[in-house]
Amino acid sequence: MSKISLGAKTLAAPTPAWLVGTYDATNRPNLATIAWGGVCCSDPPAVAISLRKSRHSYDAITARKAFTINVPSEQFVREADYVGIVSGRDTDKFAATRLTPVGSTLVDAPYVAEFPLVLECRLIHTIEIGIHTQFIGEIVDVKAAEEILNAEGLPDGELVRPIVYDPGTRNYFGLGKILGKGFVIGKELRTESGGTSGQE
Amino acid sequence: MSKISLGAKTLAAPTPAWLVGTYDATNRPNLATIAWGGVCCSDPPAVAISLRKSRHSYDAITARKAFTINVPSEQFVREADYVGIVSGRDTDKFAATRLTPVGSTLVDAPYVAEFPLVLECRLIHTIEIGIHTQFIGEIVDVKAAEEILNAEGLPDGELVRPIVYDPGTRNYFGLGKILGKGFVIGKELRTESGGTSGQE
Repeated sequence: MSKISLGAKTLAAPTPAWLVGTYDATNRPNLATIAWGGVCCSDPPAVAISLRKSRHSYDAITARKAFTINVPSEQFVREADYVGIVSGRDTDKFAATRLTPVGSTLVDAPYVAEFPLVLECRLIHTIEIGIHTQFIGEIVDVKAAEEILNAEGLPDGELVRPIVYDPGTRNYFGLGKILGKGFVIGKELRTESGGTSGQE
Repeated sequence: MSKISLGAKTLAAPTPAWLVGTYDATNRPNLATIAWGGVCCSDPPAVAISLRKSRHSYDAITARKAFTINVPSEQFVREADYVGIVSGRDTDKFAATRLTPVGSTLVDAPYVAEFPLVLECRLIHTIEIGIHTQFIGEIVDVKAAEEILNAEGLPDGELVRPIVYDPGTRNYFGLGKILGKGFVIGKELRTESGGTSGQE
């Protein structure tokens, strides 16, 4: 498969569509939509998000040293996108989206009542990269709607229905079909390839 | 929607399934599968990935100060999972998966010929978080198969068919249907909500 050079661009896929919850300087709950982020450590459990300094949420995270990651289900794609279009400086985004802020009792930030999955984060690192600053938050708790848990009590993507953002086209996607189980489906290839089968 | 506390866990969704390409100390091309990562800056374009110190790729990135992000299409889900099960210390993963290493001419790392989308990265930051170390790479070029480009010459998720990993269930998912266009679909809500329509 010969390849074409596209230049130095942020054309990774897939990326998440997450709403970052904060309190601003007037104590108003605010939200920011981000696609630049991801899990970054298992122990301590931690997640990284990147924001431009100009974003209203930047000052909030710096001041409160806390944020929430709110995972919208696909029915909230309009709300998720809207939150990324307007600024919390001049818009009460919770009011405009009719979403309900819930004050975390663990970190100094609000989360979205209607979303199925929420991570409450305490700021532990701030990394200046360039136009974006990366905030690393230790996940102090995960809150989930009972309806999205599987038999093991863990969030199931088929029930969460998270939104995937595609930077190349700017399209939001839902999840498709299950392709296989991690740490299981790969063993099919190990057996086929012979030499390495049986290694664990 | 009342919520249940699940504790301090890395239960975010969605996360990517990316293969990190490196050369090890013997100059052998190697791959590591990761879900802990994401884009972290637009300018310079940069991506963050996290690895445990025990991973063979950790030493490679530290030594060569370079890596590639290889985005598998869903037909390569077995290969992607296999690469996360075995170690490059005792397995030639390219040979075992029958994937083809191509030496980047821009960074000191190989990429996967068969995958539709590749980011060539130069290490610019190393952040010790805990059990995982985060490597931030500046994206110096993106290589894409012509077949996955849209009319604007950009990678189209519907053609790339990237793999989404769901930490709660350990399932891999394909992309589903398009939910809407970013920076467009949110405006539907702005019009409905009245007060903020017309703000740009």
